[in-house]
Amino acid sequence: MREFDLIRVLTRRLRAARADTHLALGDDAAVLAPPAGHELVVSTDTLVAGRHFPRDAHAADIGFKALAVSLSDVAAMGAEPAWATLALTLPELDSTWCKAFVEGLLQAPGAARVDIVGGDTTRGPLSVTTTVFGLVPAGTAVRRSGAQAGDLLCVTGTLGDAALGLRLWQARPRMRENAHAQWLWQRLHRPQWRRGSALRGRAHAAIDISDGLLADAGHILVASGCGARIQAAALPCSPAFAALCPQADRHALQLAGGDDYELCIVVPRAAQAALAAQLDCPLTVIGVIEAQPGLSVVDAAGAPLPTGAYPGWDHFRS
Amino acid sequence: MREFDLIRVLTRRLRAARADTHLALGDDAAVLAPPAGHELVVSTDTLVAGRHFPRDAHAADIGFKALAVSLSDVAAMGAEPAWATLALTLPELDSTWCKAFVEGLLQAPGAARVDIVGGDTTRGPLSVTTTVFGLVPAGTAVRRSGAQAGDLLCVTGTLGDAALGLRLWQARPRMRENAHAQWLWQRLHRPQWRRGSALRGRAHAAIDISDGLLADAGHILVASGCGARIQAAALPCSPAFAALCPQADRHALQLAGGDDYELCIVVPRAAQAALAAQLDCPLTVIGVIEAQPGLSVVDAAGAPLPTGAYPGWDHFRS
Repeated sequence: MREFDLIRVLTRRLRAARADTHLALGDDAAVLAPPAGHELVVSTDTLVAGRHFPRDAHAADIGFKALAVSLSDVAAMGAEPAWATLALTLPELDSTWCKAFVEGLLQAPGAARVDIVGGDTTRGPLSVTTTVFGLVPAGTAVRRSGAQAGDLLCVTGTLGDAALGLRLWQARPRMRENAHAQWLWQRLHRPQWRRGSALRGRAHAAIDISDGLLADAGHILVASGCGARIQAAALPCSPAFAALCPQADRHALQLAGGDDYELCIVVPRAAQAALAAQLDCPLTVIGVIEAQPGLSVVDAAGAPLPTGAYPGWDHFRS
Repeated sequence: MREFDLIRVLTRRLRAARADTHLALGDDAAVLAPPAGHELVVSTDTLVAGRHFPRDAHAADIGFKALAVSLSDVAAMGAEPAWATLALTLPELDSTWCKAFVEGLLQAPGAARVDIVGGDTTRGPLSVTTTVFGLVPAGTAVRRSGAQAGDLLCVTGTLGDAALGLRLWQARPRMRENAHAQWLWQRLHRPQWRRGSALRGRAHAAIDISDGLLADAGHILVASGCGARIQAAALPCSPAFAALCPQADRHALQLAGGDDYELCIVVPRAAQAALAAQLDCPLTVIGVIEAQPGLSVVDAAGAPLPTGAYPGWDHFRS
């Protein structure tokens, strides 16, 4: 198999469908027509084998995750994803692998509304770089910098699932029959990015949780020049996480575990109910924004938990 | 050094300057405002160490080339580059390397008019994926598919320099004092992509020569449903190439050597002089477009040269 055949395998399933895609794959560059009155929201992410997915991950899961992760960044801005480019570096030209990769990619939620308009295939150690383009009505993108004292700090879905799933992935021969473990592996390999259009006009700030709650909430606080207090007991937990996570590890995984691709959202109190009603997933209030910079996590009695040992927190402080 | 510091090293020199860049680095995604009446032209390229640049290439050269090769794709569409994203995968966090990489990137021609608006840094085997966004007035992008019988086939600059430069790179300890070799290494490591805005309204088709003339001209012919006859004697040759390339290898390197990032342009006879006058580099007529599909290369006496052995040609035929 040669590179040209490989590109054919990839492109056969990636036909452009949007009316505003004027030219997609097959030329030096794509030609796109963003609608008038809109801004373009652009994000790029690289997934490297052994770092962002296990080396033995399925091709379909890698394809799914490569698209989902970038869609998540665009969603965190309140944008609707419209286009993506895909740069795939592969150790060998393997058409079975590529077919599975594309099928997985097309299974990412929202993939049907996103045209893959450009790409590159190169030989080398396995990695995928995806660049996603979303659209927002001009002036409505939700940034990290709008949090205000008194706002509520919320998260979508549940936290810690992907981090626990990754830990259990090593033990999968003996956990193959465990439905909770399988669910966590789905969370790890096939993150259900949250559609962010409901954020526009409601949220003051948002970020997607890729590096862990403390690290990512920290980015909002730094950009907004404020602080936050998080209630550890309020952190939303899935049944699978509750069943399989040792008690001693819960906070670490929920506060610093990455790869959940939930949204961390700052919303004024008055808008929280309306936002929750518009989202297609649960929204949990986990804390409040404070004027004083800093990020503390407190237990049910109000006593602060130590967070300095968590890598996410460390990252935020650096 | 941690990832956060590395990002700081990279971003400090990459401040956005364009008025239509509404938000650049530092959020989940960039927010861009393409001007009304324009289309967006998008291309993505990955450079992998040991494949697209020598493993011992200088960081500054890698940065320069990473941006230049993507700008070249956008230029081949007749577009003006406006924005780029940069995904950098590095084996280790090395701030000296990163500083040199960014300085090299900023030295790419046209870099001053391009805002780097997004990126990702990951650990892994060295590679760079660049996605570039250009702008064209709506409907004016130059595609591969517009070549017509009777049009002239032209190239900018000179051919074969980068391929010869790569071959001589291995011999550099004993060629360090050779000015011709140094010039060829510049061509290899610091490709001077050609600004393509002059193509609009003049060229029928264009492509940038990254895989070799035969392969890339072949893409135009397939997309346009026609053929071409190239005069081998007309292929433009640099003084350095003429001085250092063995006679027996000239055709192979000029026809099938990649990485020159010159433009291969199809232009109607009546527009050729006007196009040449608008370009900032020499434009050489190397052949004509023919109605009959196929690509032949003939010598000064009109006899066809064998081209089947060239990888570029093979790639085109597959």
